[in-house]
Amino acid sequence: MTAQLNPHGDVAVLVLAAGAGVRLGPGVPKALRLLAGEPLLVHAIRRVAAAPSVRLIVVAAPVADVPGVRALLAPVAPVVVVAGGAERQQSVAAALAAVPEDVGIVLVHDSARALTPPELVESVAAAVRGGLPAVIPALPVVDTVKEVGPQDRVLGTVDRSVLRAVQTPQGFRHDVLAAAHATAGDPLTDDAGLVEKAGIAVTCVPGSELALKITRPLDLVLAEALLGVR
Amino acid sequence: MTAQLNPHGDVAVLVLAAGAGVRLGPGVPKALRLLAGEPLLVHAIRRVAAAPSVRLIVVAAPVADVPGVRALLAPVAPVVVVAGGAERQQSVAAALAAVPEDVGIVLVHDSARALTPPELVESVAAAVRGGLPAVIPALPVVDTVKEVGPQDRVLGTVDRSVLRAVQTPQGFRHDVLAAAHATAGDPLTDDAGLVEKAGIAVTCVPGSELALKITRPLDLVLAEALLGVR
Repeated sequence: MTAQLNPHGDVAVLVLAAGAGVRLGPGVPKALRLLAGEPLLVHAIRRVAAAPSVRLIVVAAPVADVPGVRALLAPVAPVVVVAGGAERQQSVAAALAAVPEDVGIVLVHDSARALTPPELVESVAAAVRGGLPAVIPALPVVDTVKEVGPQDRVLGTVDRSVLRAVQTPQGFRHDVLAAAHATAGDPLTDDAGLVEKAGIAVTCVPGSELALKITRPLDLVLAEALLGVR
Repeated sequence: MTAQLNPHGDVAVLVLAAGAGVRLGPGVPKALRLLAGEPLLVHAIRRVAAAPSVRLIVVAAPVADVPGVRALLAPVAPVVVVAGGAERQQSVAAALAAVPEDVGIVLVHDSARALTPPELVESVAAAVRGGLPAVIPALPVVDTVKEVGPQDRVLGTVDRSVLRAVQTPQGFRHDVLAAAHATAGDPLTDDAGLVEKAGIAVTCVPGSELALKITRPLDLVLAEALLGVR
């Protein structure tokens, strides 16, 4: 059954699905890898569409896959599919261009985080709605972390209490994200990095263990186990 | 069938099983939590005992559980069980005291890394045998990592290319570990930290995705999935 989005919602979600996903092995784009018989992208979109504040979903797909992605997602939820670029920032810019000005909150999400629950989409959006210009979900770093130098020699133990492992969706006031992209130079890891560079405060909110990034074969094993038990 | 250790091996492995494991919920000690019907400690010992260089395994258990752990492991492998302390470093010191002087290489392992393959035990030992005084297995950090300040405000993006997530077993020349413990002051996260403080070079070698630390309920789900598919 096709999900219905909320026409009165104040949130647009840009879903990035243009990555090649070489870490899962060569072949189909990462977003189209199967998890329990369905592409990661389908899992991701279904959960985003279930978040009550979402008015619009824009998917950035590899240019050659745009018609296929459109057909794939038609029975899942009403989405706009645009051609992504070679770099992540190009894909975000292309998707952002499809968002009407009167949508106040824009989230940027990675389709590889396919099991991200609707509750996390809502909590990130709610933090932006509450007055924060830029919000990223993040988890504490649980491993002992060392800094290494040449020849993998350990330089020291890092204070992990001040570190956070960042997830998506990352949430922004629409105007803040648009301004950061308008002035963006080099391609960076994430959109929050662009906003930080622009001098805007970025705040972490609690992430979710379900929002893991599915990039390695081991992650697929974990994701399938999570699907099976929940 | 009880495993046989190699009487000509040059490696002793200290296995820490004294942690309370509050992150998996209250109740039995972490090392005795069940994974696929067997305690984590049994999984860990079976794999350590399968490493061909291992001559001796010393387990540090909670003082009240020493007889129970001895009985539990008797059918798995020949191990020495000693009473651990309240702090990790006390447990390591107690286990280290049971290692004969003529064992050249000592590994310190965490029973919560129950699926660590014998191959990783061997590769860490081999690196010490090859001349490195202290060796830790580690994986690259795959997440984007931010440094945060007060109110979870992001201070900046950390250069993750120089970061490594540390695992066990950590391997040491016997004399290096003994000297580091003899002068140890405050309890630290890991033994490599003690050795670093003593000014000895610590080197990272490639870790294993199978050596994950099983501390959260989600980790048990992953570990059971890994057992099922391999």
